[in-house]
Amino acid sequence: MSHGKIAVFGAGSWGTAFSIVLADGGNEVTMWARREEVAAAINDGRENPDYLPGVELPPRVSATHDVEKALHGADIVVLATPSQTLRGNLEEWAPFAERDAVFVSLMKGVELGTLNRMSEVIHQVTGAEPDRIAVISGPNLAKEIARREPAASVVACEDESVARMLQDRCHSPAFRPYTSVDVLGCELGGAYKNVVGLAVGMAVGLGFGDNTTASVITRGLAETARLGMKLGANPLTLMGLAGLGDLVATCSSPLSRNRTFGEKLGQGLSTEEIYASTRQVAEGAKSCSSLRALGEQAGVDVPIAESVDEVVAGRLTATECMDGFLRRDTKAETD
Amino acid sequence: MSHGKIAVFGAGSWGTAFSIVLADGGNEVTMWARREEVAAAINDGRENPDYLPGVELPPRVSATHDVEKALHGADIVVLATPSQTLRGNLEEWAPFAERDAVFVSLMKGVELGTLNRMSEVIHQVTGAEPDRIAVISGPNLAKEIARREPAASVVACEDESVARMLQDRCHSPAFRPYTSVDVLGCELGGAYKNVVGLAVGMAVGLGFGDNTTASVITRGLAETARLGMKLGANPLTLMGLAGLGDLVATCSSPLSRNRTFGEKLGQGLSTEEIYASTRQVAEGAKSCSSLRALGEQAGVDVPIAESVDEVVAGRLTATECMDGFLRRDTKAETD
Repeated sequence: MSHGKIAVFGAGSWGTAFSIVLADGGNEVTMWARREEVAAAINDGRENPDYLPGVELPPRVSATHDVEKALHGADIVVLATPSQTLRGNLEEWAPFAERDAVFVSLMKGVELGTLNRMSEVIHQVTGAEPDRIAVISGPNLAKEIARREPAASVVACEDESVARMLQDRCHSPAFRPYTSVDVLGCELGGAYKNVVGLAVGMAVGLGFGDNTTASVITRGLAETARLGMKLGANPLTLMGLAGLGDLVATCSSPLSRNRTFGEKLGQGLSTEEIYASTRQVAEGAKSCSSLRALGEQAGVDVPIAESVDEVVAGRLTATECMDGFLRRDTKAETD
Repeated sequence: MSHGKIAVFGAGSWGTAFSIVLADGGNEVTMWARREEVAAAINDGRENPDYLPGVELPPRVSATHDVEKALHGADIVVLATPSQTLRGNLEEWAPFAERDAVFVSLMKGVELGTLNRMSEVIHQVTGAEPDRIAVISGPNLAKEIARREPAASVVACEDESVARMLQDRCHSPAFRPYTSVDVLGCELGGAYKNVVGLAVGMAVGLGFGDNTTASVITRGLAETARLGMKLGANPLTLMGLAGLGDLVATCSSPLSRNRTFGEKLGQGLSTEEIYASTRQVAEGAKSCSSLRALGEQAGVDVPIAESVDEVVAGRLTATECMDGFLRRDTKAETD
């Protein structure tokens, strides 16, 4: 089985792991890397030493630092950069994309300031209509995907036939994509789980156990569903792989960057100290602010996004934040 | 603050931990223990050495082996025995209960054969109407509760004023009860999470990672919600503390008996071999069969209950069971 060429922008751990999925699915994959030495390591060493050391990349994956070369002939463009830099990057890249290329976001964040989701940024910058914009999201920790452990995910596009085309292109023995038309729900679930992952990490960092983290996860999903339904998402998406599934994977795994970031906050480190010690991006540390603002705009109560934002900004300690979750008045559960 | 007397039947780990909660909430607690030496250890050693070793019991907790003495003057009777023995036990105990006593089930199972939930068994044996039957259920791992780590739970009774009375009686600084009127939803969530916990344990025992377990949890909650809604449960209960919350706590924790039981199945041990090696009861190993039958009766597809039942019965290996979950045809997520 052999498909056409797919360009993957972003050579971080998820961009690299998903390139393996796409190669296993029969596609020729060209990764674009910001740094020339990363592209060289991928081409010559068959490895991304910075983000997925020790994982051998299949022959169908190659890399380049040249945007035009990466996009030439690619009918699918996969975007896996940090959310907050997408707009600026895409403005440079879009002019070189094939005219009918489908854009696929692997990103899980909401743009600061504009409060745009990634699919909205793609539409604004490239002019592509919803039938050329898709999202792939699910419980997909990059390191496990790279080891080809079995995983499922959701491929969402408002045009279902495009979702099915993408499902076919990224289906492999270890990776099972399910189709959906709920782009908004997938994006909101993906952005929110990072913020809830931060809150769970804080609880872990403060020494709380599984009862507490399970309660935070439960409230986190309820908060996601409240905001999502107000904005027009399908609640079943949020109860599914791109909502609950991704949330549970992020919150369970010591591999998760957002949980790890929260753990360090729980241990008393400041945001600046954490940034100074890692090159990985914890999307939730930015999106908490955007999701809080989206909640305020929509008139929906979002206590987790709000208090995580306060802790990240240094205006509240992790202990005060957890106290706020745990010491509310007793009442009926579904009030 | 001082309340009246509460009788707690069952001196296992959860019965003992919940006695601590009730004592912290200001109640006089009399535990009934099947074995006289356990009652003596609790009274003299201030400890339940078999099930919660090292945890000091508060002065307000005492124990007896005498059913009549345990029930005399208790306006609340808490039941924390294994689900499959409740009916027989309660037939012996009920004649000694105070005439207007409220029965509270802490049990998470469905009776084999009759397919009755615990509240139904209580009604049948004691003749109590729904306004004297309640359920307490949530993400409450006994060892964490005993250490007084912060936790939340749901107190459900069809009569909301009774739920509020119980909320008041078991509220303590570390334990936050929320009221509900959805007894069915709480009981179904509690029984199902043990079965899904077994399935997750199998995945862990087979060496799968967090992506896989998150997918099993997601499908498990969807299966619980499908059956629950068909039977009349409120879907919000299943997305709440007694559904999702309890499920996530059970599936995350190495302390969970059902997950541990599943792990051993995943490692290739038979049900008989596992029973021979532990005194703890894994409720899910029985309830899988009841829930499967409830699903068949209701005409609802319950693949997780069904395949866990097959593995527990030795008719399917854990590997075959996981293959079944992971290798279904690709399709739309919400089909």
